[in-house]
Amino acid sequence: MIKTAIYGASGYTGQELLRILSCHPAAEIVALTSRTLTGQTIGSVYPHLCGLPLTFTDLSPEAVAELADVIFLALPHNAAMKAAPVFLEAGKRVIDLSADFRLRDERIYNLWYGKHEAPALLSQAAYGIPELYRRQIEKARLVANPGCYPTSVILGLAPLLKGGWIDHSTIIADSKSGVSGAGREAQVGSLFCEVAEGFRAYKVGEHRHTPEIEQELSRLAGSDIRITFTPHLLPVNRGILSTIYASLKRGVTTGELISHYQEFYRGEEFIRIYQKGAFPNISSVRGTNFCDLALSVDERVRRVTIISAIDNLVKGAAGQAVQNMNIISGIPEETALKSLPVFP
Amino acid sequence: MIKTAIYGASGYTGQELLRILSCHPAAEIVALTSRTLTGQTIGSVYPHLCGLPLTFTDLSPEAVAELADVIFLALPHNAAMKAAPVFLEAGKRVIDLSADFRLRDERIYNLWYGKHEAPALLSQAAYGIPELYRRQIEKARLVANPGCYPTSVILGLAPLLKGGWIDHSTIIADSKSGVSGAGREAQVGSLFCEVAEGFRAYKVGEHRHTPEIEQELSRLAGSDIRITFTPHLLPVNRGILSTIYASLKRGVTTGELISHYQEFYRGEEFIRIYQKGAFPNISSVRGTNFCDLALSVDERVRRVTIISAIDNLVKGAAGQAVQNMNIISGIPEETALKSLPVFP
Amino acid sequence: MIKTAIYGASGYTGQELLRILSCHPAAEIVALTSRTLTGQTIGSVYPHLCGLPLTFTDLSPEAVAELADVIFLALPHNAAMKAAPVFLEAGKRVIDLSADFRLRDERIYNLWYGKHEAPALLSQAAYGIPELYRRQIEKARLVANPGCYPTSVILGLAPLLKGGWIDHSTIIADSKSGVSGAGREAQVGSLFCEVAEGFRAYKVGEHRHTPEIEQELSRLAGSDIRITFTPHLLPVNRGILSTIYASLKRGVTTGELISHYQEFYRGEEFIRIYQKGAFPNISSVRGTNFCDLALSVDERVRRVTIISAIDNLVKGAAGQAVQNMNIISGIPEETALKSLPVFP
Amino acid sequence: MIKTAIYGASGYTGQELLRILSCHPAAEIVALTSRTLTGQTIGSVYPHLCGLPLTFTDLSPEAVAELADVIFLALPHNAAMKAAPVFLEAGKRVIDLSADFRLRDERIYNLWYGKHEAPALLSQAAYGIPELYRRQIEKARLVANPGCYPTSVILGLAPLLKGGWIDHSTIIADSKSGVSGAGREAQVGSLFCEVAEGFRAYKVGEHRHTPEIEQELSRLAGSDIRITFTPHLLPVNRGILSTIYASLKRGVTTGELISHYQEFYRGEEFIRIYQKGAFPNISSVRGTNFCDLALSVDERVRRVTIISAIDNLVKGAAGQAVQNMNIISGIPEETALKSLPVFP
Repeated sequence: MIKTAIYGASGYTGQELLRILSCHPAAEIVALTSRTLTGQTIGSVYPHLCGLPLTFTDLSPEAVAELADVIFLALPHNAAMKAAPVFLEAGKRVIDLSADFRLRDERIYNLWYGKHEAPALLSQAAYGIPELYRRQIEKARLVANPGCYPTSVILGLAPLLKGGWIDHSTIIADSKSGVSGAGREAQVGSLFCEVAEGFRAYKVGEHRHTPEIEQELSRLAGSDIRITFTPHLLPVNRGILSTIYASLKRGVTTGELISHYQEFYRGEEFIRIYQKGAFPNISSVRGTNFCDLALSVDERVRRVTIISAIDNLVKGAAGQAVQNMNIISGIPEETALKSLPVFP
Repeated sequence: MIKTAIYGASGYTGQELLRILSCHPAAEIVALTSRTLTGQTIGSVYPHLCGLPLTFTDLSPEAVAELADVIFLALPHNAAMKAAPVFLEAGKRVIDLSADFRLRDERIYNLWYGKHEAPALLSQAAYGIPELYRRQIEKARLVANPGCYPTSVILGLAPLLKGGWIDHSTIIADSKSGVSGAGREAQVGSLFCEVAEGFRAYKVGEHRHTPEIEQELSRLAGSDIRITFTPHLLPVNRGILSTIYASLKRGVTTGELISHYQEFYRGEEFIRIYQKGAFPNISSVRGTNFCDLALSVDERVRRVTIISAIDNLVKGAAGQAVQNMNIISGIPEETALKSLPVFP
Repeated sequence: MIKTAIYGASGYTGQELLRILSCHPAAEIVALTSRTLTGQTIGSVYPHLCGLPLTFTDLSPEAVAELADVIFLALPHNAAMKAAPVFLEAGKRVIDLSADFRLRDERIYNLWYGKHEAPALLSQAAYGIPELYRRQIEKARLVANPGCYPTSVILGLAPLLKGGWIDHSTIIADSKSGVSGAGREAQVGSLFCEVAEGFRAYKVGEHRHTPEIEQELSRLAGSDIRITFTPHLLPVNRGILSTIYASLKRGVTTGELISHYQEFYRGEEFIRIYQKGAFPNISSVRGTNFCDLALSVDERVRRVTIISAIDNLVKGAAGQAVQNMNIISGIPEETALKSLPVFP
Repeated sequence: MIKTAIYGASGYTGQELLRILSCHPAAEIVALTSRTLTGQTIGSVYPHLCGLPLTFTDLSPEAVAELADVIFLALPHNAAMKAAPVFLEAGKRVIDLSADFRLRDERIYNLWYGKHEAPALLSQAAYGIPELYRRQIEKARLVANPGCYPTSVILGLAPLLKGGWIDHSTIIADSKSGVSGAGREAQVGSLFCEVAEGFRAYKVGEHRHTPEIEQELSRLAGSDIRITFTPHLLPVNRGILSTIYASLKRGVTTGELISHYQEFYRGEEFIRIYQKGAFPNISSVRGTNFCDLALSVDERVRRVTIISAIDNLVKGAAGQAVQNMNIISGIPEETALKSLPVFP
């Protein structure tokens, strides 16, 4: 049994990790920490999980390092970079769900998130999208679990970037996310009454996921890419749908691109490529680790539209984290991640 | 492996059975029928299930009876009573999710649903609430899977009726259901725009689940009971919450009643009794087979309030059906029914 | 022009008062106060009101008393009782939307809300349901604007209590409210993700509106009444639907009761009595000052079900407050309150 | 008083026209037709409008032409083109809310909607966006009321096209609409359970509003424009938010563009330009005739993002139709269109 700990487990991502891990046949949860909830049972905070015999503690990283083999960091950014070194020095493996180890360039991190306190670790972290970087993840001691928006955009564009099909200067990602992406903090903007029956863009041109997306797209393309990224807030609990646009360098049909994507992602359990004319709904991936992809070429304007749908808390966070844990632990990648969506 | 068929699988209950059965380690789906969807793959109708290699057929009951051992009837009432005899005569076991075999009194059926065509079977059917009738279900060849509202109300009241605590003439069930209870028929009243940001009572004093609830409450109490039952339509996909009221015959505290319920349902995996002061949310049972129960005594007026929450498509339909299948098949009752709620 | 001020205007009730008053042909808004938002324009806090040229100030009650003739207090309870005397001593009229002057018995107030600091005013306040107490409101200098739940329940029961039709010991009010009733405070329980796709009862047997409802029902009946009141939280922005139950003293048909209600509320612009078999939806009163009422007698159990629907922010708060302002100002009661619901 | 008729009033647009016109001080509704609802009162079909003393009739166009001066056609496309000539020949004025007279090129109409039966009228129709074509509308006998998506996109882009600021080949409109845009037809895709907690693109690259948008953008620019337009379905009742992208021909700041928009739309009552860093929410225009616009220049990639929000049933349909009626009737353009949004 893999001994796992969730460090900073109070939020939506933490409880989602719990949901997945509690059904994992090869993992055991040995610690669940939260400074604010210490002493409370999981059921008193999250009634839907009242069957789990777990209690939040306020253990130090050092104490947790003695109990667990794999530690999921579900802390805010700036906090994860303080805890990670403790675990790594104790010889443990860390899967960090914050942004702290996603950006490889320290200066860019400092610009968007504030001063990094463990910059030496940046180059050691594997960027945790298994479909693209499985080899690096296998060997990594520190996995930087990707952001939710970046996961949807990068998986949507990777096959085109690798193939050299598109004009890199024309990429636009128009993304829409459910409210759980904002976390469980009590803030006016996340209140039911502010969100229900509403829809809006936010942080236009200045969302922190922009440099993360650009770093990874540039890496895939082998050249410097800058995109326009617009996040929007959907009145739903879960789900991200990114509608991505790019100009094609040469004439190609929707069918040809679909074939290319099928080839690119051949054998990937969690990628589903839609047939021509069908487009994903976030409700089709709810609660699952799937990334659903559809393509459409508008030949009149020689532009491709890619639609990418994930559950922000699963493939966009906790599910991908467990997928990474499975990889670094040498067990089948899909373990505990095969449930089907609850619909409607 | 238990060979199962879903007869009439096009609706929300049918696809929910599919979701549960496809993860069942001891069951196999050998047929999926639908007159209207014959020839279509499951994924073209329900994209979220696109991974399942299943196609709707239009097989006759006779043909299905040759393939399957257990048949789930997910047909409308009046249709199930025509198909069930074919399966039973072929020696198969039937779990009927319609209302056709729930009422034991033929005259009452005729009054609420129209002429019954297989009245001889009414006395053979076991009423499928395992927590109350496990012994009968074990031996049954025909299980009448209960209605969603009745499941929530009957489980909520059973311990009080058995104990003789309440004045039977004072029972009121104020129930609220999500929209999936209305099925997938294209009707104006179920349109998003008619339901969202709305809430209303419907069929006040005349809902067909009333005689079913009264039959079962009377049976538990050993005397004739009539109740007031008011269904309401909630703007949510899933879930039923019933708030049930009754006058107490003698002074008793909330704590004493909670103890009584804990005793009554001891060992039941799918019943969760809440502690004093805590009350269930339908989101805590979403996608699961749980029935969550809470109690509160208002000593000023000597009245008890019972709150009962289920997922109408799981404990209120497909989940309870699989629970019944497990029982009649002699396998652990909770098989394939242990997943936790997806929240939020 | 009536010079009006909204004292404590930051919340949902405050902005709703603003929406209504800004279209009022005989009223002018001379001050809008908020300690936390002082200096901000209304449009920066509530973008949908960006057309109104108003700015929040932090004026003292004394300063506002010099500007306005009618003051709406949209403060929390305990705060309103401190501000009201200042306005009244300055000879101004006050419409208080908090609970501070609704309970006539000081001891009951102290029990539920804490020590009252202006108990001498309790007997001077008119309870502001115009359909029942229009004469008293006309002459009042202090109007206690009723709670949202109480408005729905009292209007629903008044005709039965006046007529002596029901057994007073059997009254149960099962009420369901939209989330705006919880205000705009940033609290976890009001977050979109905690509410959407959920439904739950809360404060069962202990909601502060219970003594207010009981006080008014007792007054109407002329004898002491205790009820069971259960509030629930609906995943909608606005609206309250109360389903009210009572045993009938004698046989009466639904039609007879409907006639009685029509007679009782004859001439009332804001009360709509539904025909037999029709039941209100909160979406039919959204944004309006209507109270929609429907009745159904279950003759089998000699019990009546009354359904009462209002918009909690309009008839349940700001709309009724403006109705009261119109009355005390001697202008037509429906002024500024005649818009139709926006549907869907 | 302007005598108005709504021809084909059964749908969401029809009832919205009714809501607006019933508060119009200079208009009177003399006929309300519907083939399917003939004989029913408005209140029996739309309970929220039960106060209006109106009944659906099945009058012929000829009969309605004798009663009304201005006829709103709220018929499906292909039906409006049959009715319009009757009214025009009788000397009446027609505001058509269908697509039948929006496209000036008969061949393009035939391609997207089927054979046009009154092509001679195409050149006579004024395209009813008052902010752009007020002069033509004033004199028109036939107004083609614009589509909802086109209204949002055209108003969002007009100032840029007129100014020659952008590369016309780079325009992308990513639009999201509430469900009322699909009408009140009973279809599975509009059911609550299919839409709630979901989000998806539809008709990617093939929505019928594409040629309408391109026609109008080309007209404004004075050259042939082709765009990429992607509609999405939002789980809300009302509202369209279009996020529009285009490459800038030269360096310009967000502030300069905002100034340009403010100048372009100076004096327009229904256009609200947001300050830098603020972005509209569809909830801020709900139930109103506003079009809210925000701009953001991403200087890194020299691209502008324009966000345009309207209520699809008001500025996108019934409200704009009444605005057009006001113009052709010579009364103040904002009459009956000044109510503020109901929020939350």
